[in-house]
Amino acid sequence: MKLSNMVGDRFKERPSDCVIDSHAFSVRGGYIKYVSNGIYSLYPPMKRVTAKIENIIREEMDAAGSQEVLFPVVLPGSLWEESGRFESVGEELLRFKDRNNSSMVLGMTHEEAAVHMVREWGNTYAKYPFSIYQIQTKFRDEARPRAGLIRVREFTMKDAYSFHTSQEDLEKYYAVMANSYFRIFERAGIPEVVSVKSDSGMIGGSVSHEYMLLVDAGEDSIVFCDECGYSANMEAADTTVDNSGCTPIGELTKVNTPDCKTIEEVCNFLHSKVEESCKAVIYQTNQTDEYIVVFLRGDYEVNETKLTNLLGDKVHAATITEECGLCAGFCGPYKQEAKCRIIYDKSLEGLENMVCGANEVDYHYTGLNIKRDIGDVEYVDVAKIRTGDICPVCGKKSIRISRGIEVGNIFQLGTKYTKSMGMTYTDVDGSVKTPIMGCYGIGVGRLAASVMEAKHDDYGPIWPISIAPWQVHLCCMRSDKAECKEAADKIYNDLLKAGVEVIYDDRNVQAGVMFADADLLGVPVRVTIGPKNIANGQIEISTRDKSVKELVNVDDANAEIKKLIDKLFDEINSKVRDRI
Amino acid sequence: MKLSNMVGDRFKERPSDCVIDSHAFSVRGGYIKYVSNGIYSLYPPMKRVTAKIENIIREEMDAAGSQEVLFPVVLPGSLWEESGRFESVGEELLRFKDRNNSSMVLGMTHEEAAVHMVREWGNTYAKYPFSIYQIQTKFRDEARPRAGLIRVREFTMKDAYSFHTSQEDLEKYYAVMANSYFRIFERAGIPEVVSVKSDSGMIGGSVSHEYMLLVDAGEDSIVFCDECGYSANMEAADTTVDNSGCTPIGELTKVNTPDCKTIEEVCNFLHSKVEESCKAVIYQTNQTDEYIVVFLRGDYEVNETKLTNLLGDKVHAATITEECGLCAGFCGPYKQEAKCRIIYDKSLEGLENMVCGANEVDYHYTGLNIKRDIGDVEYVDVAKIRTGDICPVCGKKSIRISRGIEVGNIFQLGTKYTKSMGMTYTDVDGSVKTPIMGCYGIGVGRLAASVMEAKHDDYGPIWPISIAPWQVHLCCMRSDKAECKEAADKIYNDLLKAGVEVIYDDRNVQAGVMFADADLLGVPVRVTIGPKNIANGQIEISTRDKSVKELVNVDDANAEIKKLIDKLFDEINSKVRDRI
Repeated sequence: MKLSNMVGDRFKERPSDCVIDSHAFSVRGGYIKYVSNGIYSLYPPMKRVTAKIENIIREEMDAAGSQEVLFPVVLPGSLWEESGRFESVGEELLRFKDRNNSSMVLGMTHEEAAVHMVREWGNTYAKYPFSIYQIQTKFRDEARPRAGLIRVREFTMKDAYSFHTSQEDLEKYYAVMANSYFRIFERAGIPEVVSVKSDSGMIGGSVSHEYMLLVDAGEDSIVFCDECGYSANMEAADTTVDNSGCTPIGELTKVNTPDCKTIEEVCNFLHSKVEESCKAVIYQTNQTDEYIVVFLRGDYEVNETKLTNLLGDKVHAATITEECGLCAGFCGPYKQEAKCRIIYDKSLEGLENMVCGANEVDYHYTGLNIKRDIGDVEYVDVAKIRTGDICPVCGKKSIRISRGIEVGNIFQLGTKYTKSMGMTYTDVDGSVKTPIMGCYGIGVGRLAASVMEAKHDDYGPIWPISIAPWQVHLCCMRSDKAECKEAADKIYNDLLKAGVEVIYDDRNVQAGVMFADADLLGVPVRVTIGPKNIANGQIEISTRDKSVKELVNVDDANAEIKKLIDKLFDEINSKVRDRI
Repeated sequence: MKLSNMVGDRFKERPSDCVIDSHAFSVRGGYIKYVSNGIYSLYPPMKRVTAKIENIIREEMDAAGSQEVLFPVVLPGSLWEESGRFESVGEELLRFKDRNNSSMVLGMTHEEAAVHMVREWGNTYAKYPFSIYQIQTKFRDEARPRAGLIRVREFTMKDAYSFHTSQEDLEKYYAVMANSYFRIFERAGIPEVVSVKSDSGMIGGSVSHEYMLLVDAGEDSIVFCDECGYSANMEAADTTVDNSGCTPIGELTKVNTPDCKTIEEVCNFLHSKVEESCKAVIYQTNQTDEYIVVFLRGDYEVNETKLTNLLGDKVHAATITEECGLCAGFCGPYKQEAKCRIIYDKSLEGLENMVCGANEVDYHYTGLNIKRDIGDVEYVDVAKIRTGDICPVCGKKSIRISRGIEVGNIFQLGTKYTKSMGMTYTDVDGSVKTPIMGCYGIGVGRLAASVMEAKHDDYGPIWPISIAPWQVHLCCMRSDKAECKEAADKIYNDLLKAGVEVIYDDRNVQAGVMFADADLLGVPVRVTIGPKNIANGQIEISTRDKSVKELVNVDDANAEIKKLIDKLFDEINSKVRDRI
């Protein structure tokens, strides 16, 4: 393709609304066009990148024995009522009525459609296991779309669904898919992706893993233990707190703490340790507005996903009214008389002598001992794990937290959908059973943007050759000079004939403009034809990552370019492994 | 792929709701799964057929210099307000509100999105012409989805949009696209597709063509003149009526016509010719309910699309109330005093002495002469052309009407969208101008179903090899016998290694079941391995269309199969031409 003809503008200024680099390059490089909040059109370079990612995914899914199908974008609400999700999923499920006043939804994931497709076919054990997948547009009415293609409302996603007659068989296939996922990310040029245990959220099921690309701009926090290799999403990581060595039991005493608004101010004022304080965080549940008071160690924060999973309902920050009986800023467990649900986090377990709120303005207690002063309570884990915390597996104080983008996820769903939707099969002994499901997702556009986020310099993306929009970026400097133009035209046509994907910049523009555009397009191999070199019968071949820059004879150009392309592919493919 | 593992059931009984064969085979062959009215999931065989069609389209669009992009399925209503279509398009445009109460629509076509994508980029004449296309899911809330994938609500469509600085340039590219379209249909195995002049409908523009596959089950009527080669969609064909030789002028006389309800009954009763009668068809407009009375020759019917185009509004059959003043069954132009709009069809032009209603129950006039009795009226063409009518081009009475399925369409849009949406460019002389657009659509699923409709026998589709779900259907009869199973396994693996697409039926089922399934899957090359032949070291190779059936030695099997595949491809490719 000739760059002069390609739709989409490239420009220098970073748009003010772009917080992360990949978003800025997506806009500046003419990859995406904003259409509406979280909705984008894709220009040719991004369409080409996503098409290549889709092909890699397709090859790996086919190799894993999954069959490609297609589910609709628009689904009848009745299908989601069968699974119960029509009611249970929040506003991110877009519901509407069609012209006949039938309730419809936009598919944000297709568990129901998958079960619907194979419900009758999969009626005997002999058909199992089997796996189906699609690559299709999805819509999720996100409250806060952001970061370009990283978090959008409309997106293309590969979603696969597997069906099994036993948990062992599901686990076996789950491992096959896990292997396919690593291969997909390796082939897409990001072998550094890690898999972490995750919270299953609204999809359901017990065991699930997320594939995380570790980048500072990621919106997820991932927990690692460098000692034993443990890893998990923040939400799925058990927080273990060691309170041995705390101050021994003391007397419960009410003290005046004027103007102390935070637990840090209180402890500072009382010369006590924040690690020996009990702070309160007050929420209300979304469905019933019930007050939820979480007590936890003063130096910990509540992980709201853990809390949501515990309560079976989402929460929001509480509105403290006079009627509710809670004393904001001074809320404590002792003589707490407000009508609310109280939750004790595990971080308090083992503390003997704490500072806590006295449920009275400007007063706290010192010397709180929960067992003595309140009695036996149940401790649950709703706290956010922190750097340096205790690894829940090896027990060492070795927790490290990194930021990452979730580029894929896999779930062991169990029978959540098959049971609710009445899918059964006859087993070998004639008994009627419910199949067990797994599901496996990858967002195509997010993966493209994530690679851009992980692989870029100050000037633009550095695409891995396997998913680059083109393999070669041909720059003809001084296309007004016949000798340059002719040489460039010839190389362009020769490369096309050889099946090489080339973007050809034949514009008569300044070198600065030409190279800035090439950097924004991030094509791995660059071929530059300029008047000085061409006078010596030479052209320049370089790589976007600057690791290669050499002059070659015009006559050798084709062969050298192809050699370089092969080398770049080899570098990627050498990292693609079979793990099972 | 092994047939035993493929999701989707095949069965013998024709479903009662399937009116046309392709719909019945789509269901019986496990190609599609009904999800909701006009919404289907695709099983692997149909997903494979549509993927191949998409690839053919993609290659031809790329070759025509169109750039692949992607527009969203969900579009902001504001974009459709810019073009005026948010208001003007009927209920088939699905409108809804998102969680923020913003007005959104499901894209049924993407002219607005295309202009939005290139509005800023295409700001100078130097960028023109250019063309963009996408292959994407669309939704059209059809009132009456029917015939399987032929008329659905959700569908995958290729839509291309070209932008030009002159009508001449548009026409040049329109011809390029017309050529690409013929190549696409030829490559898909239906070279018999014809292009006909069409009505532009809600897309807009002046010149447009439809690509029609002529099959009896088609829902469109296409007009042909075998004398001069003229062709047009029914809606776009001018109706020419020859009234020379009609009865000469007579006296206007009111006559009693008791119990005559139709114009045929009236003429029969009065012993006059229906060809010399003036009948009334009464409508109301959709927007204002204004009464529209169409007078036309008694033996013609109203073409409602022509009428809609004339009125600029759709119409529905009138509700005749007492207040409206129209006398149903006896409505005539003479002394017509009702408050209504009267339209005279051209079929009445030249008639001198007609029967018509007298606007009074049980009475008609004879001897009506419009010029004498009513005065000068304007005649317009709103009648349906009929077999044997006069060709509007060569003037011979040679009109033939066939049924067809529209498998593609191309439009010269003019400036309808660019003007309303404020897209301009600076011309070479510095003046600011509005670009001219063309648009070009092909429904992928409909094309697949249309090929099935055109190419089938009593037992299933006969897929052209270029879009067949697989190239080879390998039937292992008696897979319980080791010599059959081993030979089949070897051929299967050898063919896969050679890059041949094989569906392998290794089930231990009756020959009847196996062949019925193979017929339903319609794979062009069939390889049958049975105990008798294999004992002689032979296998059977045949084609789905029964033109080939031969025994070959097992050792030659691979080579012979590949030769046959090549031959089938050659047959298709020999019909692919460049016309420009």
